[in-house]
Amino acid sequence: MREVYIVGIGQTPVDEHWDRPLRELGADAANAAVKDAKIDCPQALFVGNMLSGCTCGQENLGTVIADFAGFNGIEAMKIETACASGGAAVRAAYLAVASGAHDVVVALGVEKLTDLPIEGTTAALAGAADADYEAAHGVTFTALNALMMRLYIERYRVRKDDFAAFVINAHNHAKSNPNAMFRRPVTLEDYARSPMVAEPICILDSSPVADGAAAVVLCSADRARALSDQSIRILGSALATDTIGLGSRRETLRCEAIRRSAQLAFKQAGVGPQDIDFVELHDAFSIVAALSLEASGFVKDGQALPFALEGNIGIAGALPCSTRGGLKARGHPVGASGVYQVVEAVQQLRGQAGDSQVKGCRVAMTQSVGGLASVAVTHILGA
Amino acid sequence: MREVYIVGIGQTPVDEHWDRPLRELGADAANAAVKDAKIDCPQALFVGNMLSGCTCGQENLGTVIADFAGFNGIEAMKIETACASGGAAVRAAYLAVASGAHDVVVALGVEKLTDLPIEGTTAALAGAADADYEAAHGVTFTALNALMMRLYIERYRVRKDDFAAFVINAHNHAKSNPNAMFRRPVTLEDYARSPMVAEPICILDSSPVADGAAAVVLCSADRARALSDQSIRILGSALATDTIGLGSRRETLRCEAIRRSAQLAFKQAGVGPQDIDFVELHDAFSIVAALSLEASGFVKDGQALPFALEGNIGIAGALPCSTRGGLKARGHPVGASGVYQVVEAVQQLRGQAGDSQVKGCRVAMTQSVGGLASVAVTHILGA
Repeated sequence: MREVYIVGIGQTPVDEHWDRPLRELGADAANAAVKDAKIDCPQALFVGNMLSGCTCGQENLGTVIADFAGFNGIEAMKIETACASGGAAVRAAYLAVASGAHDVVVALGVEKLTDLPIEGTTAALAGAADADYEAAHGVTFTALNALMMRLYIERYRVRKDDFAAFVINAHNHAKSNPNAMFRRPVTLEDYARSPMVAEPICILDSSPVADGAAAVVLCSADRARALSDQSIRILGSALATDTIGLGSRRETLRCEAIRRSAQLAFKQAGVGPQDIDFVELHDAFSIVAALSLEASGFVKDGQALPFALEGNIGIAGALPCSTRGGLKARGHPVGASGVYQVVEAVQQLRGQAGDSQVKGCRVAMTQSVGGLASVAVTHILGA
Repeated sequence: MREVYIVGIGQTPVDEHWDRPLRELGADAANAAVKDAKIDCPQALFVGNMLSGCTCGQENLGTVIADFAGFNGIEAMKIETACASGGAAVRAAYLAVASGAHDVVVALGVEKLTDLPIEGTTAALAGAADADYEAAHGVTFTALNALMMRLYIERYRVRKDDFAAFVINAHNHAKSNPNAMFRRPVTLEDYARSPMVAEPICILDSSPVADGAAAVVLCSADRARALSDQSIRILGSALATDTIGLGSRRETLRCEAIRRSAQLAFKQAGVGPQDIDFVELHDAFSIVAALSLEASGFVKDGQALPFALEGNIGIAGALPCSTRGGLKARGHPVGASGVYQVVEAVQQLRGQAGDSQVKGCRVAMTQSVGGLASVAVTHILGA
């Protein structure tokens, strides 16, 4: 396989963009990345998106964004793996460059969720789970995550309030991110007071439904040398799945898709968890952040909460997590989040992360998770 | 790039499968292809589908099908380019093998359209066009194609009834295809009597809304040699786009996406239109069949109808088209059709096409078109 590099990044703020159509958000992020990479037009566009059909009546999204961004006639397709669609778009773009079919491509993630009444968005998001055997019975996506959190609390005898460590950390890191949705800090008291959504998941455990778009320019080694002296190499890239339904798993808390995608990415990169300087976690719910740290091998099963509580996940900690606010505080425009993670990792590796800069970082992991951890995409990036 | 081969095919009948869920159709076709290839489990699954979210409430379709097909834990993602989603899934699978990331993968196309009331399906299908600037004004996808057909009739001074040549041809070829939806022949009289849908498009100009799934197994040269003595090589693969809206084009009838994808595929394969033994056309409407022949370079602009009327597109003609019934008579389960085309081309190249076998064929073209020809995927296959 050819080596693949990242030479450009772009993003819109994550927010409730009621005044801006889906295509405009997508084209703005894509064009910002293209400008950052100092190229004219990519050869292909891979658009990560989950719900454009249900929330905007628009399919054929690759064509729509390529057209509106001014990428006239190029190859373009939409990639969907539920909440991991952004990570999967980066993966598809990686394969296109690695194959030799293209030298310069854009991976874009874009989502617009706030135009629908929230009941409509909630119903559509349940399509990330098993529509026939889970969602059809009325369970929401949050309720399914609540089952995992409840089991975790009972299995490992932890306190619900200990999950606050992930939330406080994410909001802290978002303060210096101008594109983050929630830049105010939260306290343990805020968390304890936070209203329940689906017990034990409270509002502050949950990432916000939001609109936004993020993009990266991927290219071959030759083009990377010509375009940038700060290109970031994709050292590892892997996507794995698990059963779609939570009830079909032998061990609910093992998160096999996360585990396998991390192991494959580590193996390709020739590194292990101890070599990762920081990680952009899929903290859509705080339980998913904890399970991701465990399944990826950073801590043993059941050890994520003590690890977080001991200060390891802060910017100066042993393993800074969600360094620009994560899905929790930057916001979670579903199919875009996986690309935001890569954009933010590149900012860190370039030394452009402002007050939340991780000192001396060289190797990053980004991990995008979909459904009830039924699909996961892991990338390892090196400066 | 590594060479890529097809070593297995599978399909379900195209029909109104009210009794069979989306995942079952998809898994059946995928497993049939895997069995045909004599492999245990592919390393990745690329699912072409347009509307699973809107028609079945199910996103995360790659995971769902991988799980239900028994492909435990593999890489899986959904690929969407509207009506060309099947072709794009083959393209994505091709890139995955060409890159070296995987040696054996499945490209699946699956769609379930008949569970919704037809108004719902019609509205969802309009998402293949420009949702904000075309569909929002109430125009249906058929009406937009009717605008192209009307312009064609006026520009080239042809008779509406001459389009019947494509319809009669497709129905003729479907007779020997046990998976085709309409296996009865139609006559010029039937066509002339056919009720209007959106003038000048009549019912017999239109492919039927349907359910179905088709799959192909793609692999590397090494694996192809080990698995099969009848493997088919992908000689050319290309995807191109055009403006999403019909109104933004300089020349409405030029179909730049079809033109460009055909030219790129010819160039990669090192062949030209004269070398193609038969073509599986995207005859969703008879006007699209005509425009595809012209934009692909088989005939000059405006010459498709005389070409068809002179008997060239029949099995014994100069360029057999839609040899197993095409979208028109085999049926058009939207995101699956592009994979059905590849399955049918492989049947021909293997000599397994029964009464509609093209004698001595060696090189085939399949072409999957999405939106108002705003996206097109062309593959050239060699025996």
